[in-house]
Amino acid sequence: MTIDELGEFGLIARIGRSLPSTGKEVIVGIGDDVAVLRGEGDMVWLATCDVQVEGVHFLREATGPYDLGRKALAINLSDIASAAGSPRFALVSLGLPRGLDVAFVDGLYAGLGEEARLYGVDVVGGNITGTRGGVFVDIFLLGEAKRDEVTLRSGARVGDAVLVTGTIGDAAAGVALLLDPRLSTSAAYAGLARARMDAPSPRVEEGRILGATRKVGAMTDISDGLAGDLGHICERSGVGARLYAEALPVAPENRALALSAHADEWHYALHGGEDYELLFTVPAAEASGIADLVRRETGTQVSLVGEIVDAGRGSELELPGGRVVPLEARGWDHLRAGEAEGRA
Amino acid sequence: MTIDELGEFGLIARIGRSLPSTGKEVIVGIGDDVAVLRGEGDMVWLATCDVQVEGVHFLREATGPYDLGRKALAINLSDIASAAGSPRFALVSLGLPRGLDVAFVDGLYAGLGEEARLYGVDVVGGNITGTRGGVFVDIFLLGEAKRDEVTLRSGARVGDAVLVTGTIGDAAAGVALLLDPRLSTSAAYAGLARARMDAPSPRVEEGRILGATRKVGAMTDISDGLAGDLGHICERSGVGARLYAEALPVAPENRALALSAHADEWHYALHGGEDYELLFTVPAAEASGIADLVRRETGTQVSLVGEIVDAGRGSELELPGGRVVPLEARGWDHLRAGEAEGRA
Repeated sequence: MTIDELGEFGLIARIGRSLPSTGKEVIVGIGDDVAVLRGEGDMVWLATCDVQVEGVHFLREATGPYDLGRKALAINLSDIASAAGSPRFALVSLGLPRGLDVAFVDGLYAGLGEEARLYGVDVVGGNITGTRGGVFVDIFLLGEAKRDEVTLRSGARVGDAVLVTGTIGDAAAGVALLLDPRLSTSAAYAGLARARMDAPSPRVEEGRILGATRKVGAMTDISDGLAGDLGHICERSGVGARLYAEALPVAPENRALALSAHADEWHYALHGGEDYELLFTVPAAEASGIADLVRRETGTQVSLVGEIVDAGRGSELELPGGRVVPLEARGWDHLRAGEAEGRA
Repeated sequence: MTIDELGEFGLIARIGRSLPSTGKEVIVGIGDDVAVLRGEGDMVWLATCDVQVEGVHFLREATGPYDLGRKALAINLSDIASAAGSPRFALVSLGLPRGLDVAFVDGLYAGLGEEARLYGVDVVGGNITGTRGGVFVDIFLLGEAKRDEVTLRSGARVGDAVLVTGTIGDAAAGVALLLDPRLSTSAAYAGLARARMDAPSPRVEEGRILGATRKVGAMTDISDGLAGDLGHICERSGVGARLYAEALPVAPENRALALSAHADEWHYALHGGEDYELLFTVPAAEASGIADLVRRETGTQVSLVGEIVDAGRGSELELPGGRVVPLEARGWDHLRAGEAEGRA
């Protein structure tokens, strides 16, 4: 069997089963957005890593080194945000092909340094190696949180409301516009989609505010697509979920693009990936108050997009008009290098 | 200017200068074997990362996945050992090409899990991505140490003795025997050299014993070659060094191989790399006592191989017979993908 046949999440589960069990200092190990490690007093450490690989996550001719540096850190900040943590220390492992101009590395670190400064992260070390292929930027990020404020993929309860920050599907539309010259949209939306693809805004402050309410059931960031990441919450929490299509925070231009490219106006919103928004659950009675709180404190919109249901119902999508269809968890699978049937 | 022209260590220095200065929680940042971060009470956290890239650090047809998994963790354990720390938590960032057999990943994690178990490390998370090229295994390792026992590259003083654990040059001979079919040696030494290349023994216990003496001036691990890594100590400590060729712990077969391949019997010992032995300095009067202590407690031999001298003298090698020659810091440079003039 090949890794593509097993899929990214099947492989992660297999690895988790194969490793020795961890010690009592490890509060959460493999399988969530971050590892949670016992810290000082009532604090815990959060540890995560994520990589940008040339030809897989970015094209060097399309993404400049400054944007790449910012994004490589941003996608890790988003993981810390999903656990309601504060990012602290980063290590940067670079793979660089022979003959690369030093200006590329200068630009990469200018972006990375700016993102670190904005979010209060110290870059404390790393590694540099040559590669036979392209560039990779692998970042390891440590954050901190109060133990009883940490939010995980587990913890969603039947009846909870499902909420999402910001808008979704834009980054996927940006990728589609870059790769498929037949697609067209307004110049304004093309620019927005491109910016969302190149420069995601990790929701660190929003995550901290949500954690501090101590009302969040489960939280994750949307990196693999809303349907796929909701699937991760359902799997870890032992629940199902229903999304309301009409409530999804999706730009009309995004729906038009998805309709023309995939004959499904919700395609980018549900299956696109790289939104780096927060997806979370709270008790239904708290939903509007918590959405207001985040909007008031950060200016970021929060939308109520669904509800948590029995595990037996799986994941469903309620279409405009009331028809309910199964929600396929077709998120981004990094081993299949494209959209595929997810296993979440 | 390309990165090859600047070189790995020139590039690291350039990156260090470009980044914002770090906060007061960062005791040691970029430029040593590990970052040192303030921990609880008198403890500090040590953070490091290192990667194995197919075609650069290993050939998949020559190194099995089990050995690769062990080695990928071992080279990081060696960095924690060089700071006299205890390894604790690892994250594993894998890059895997499409079509790879799942058995490869199973083997990799069997090796990695065994190495983790032997050294008391919890594997707490990671990431998996597809690649367009080969495999990479990037590991982030966190360790702990008592703050006043941490050993760094800085701290060597004029008059200190220079010591090294184990034997050196064997891994480089293993690589040479693999790549150059014209070389020959005894079957016994070929097996030893191959084992040292495939399965380095990180000197974690030796490092802890050395740190606990509180007598160590500077310490690093030998990953880039003795001459290059001694250069790192000299640069960070502001000193020079003299090595005694006859005192180097090198197998006679190793010297014979180096003589036939490089017309220099000390070539692998000085410039080979991947020894993953500890190189350290202590006050001259303490050298034999400390060497005895490590040998008694761990069974690992420790050799007195040189002395720390004025920075103005640079690095020198005293040949058998007493002639002294400049010691070129030709270590492994990952950006030049071969032996090159180092900048340390």
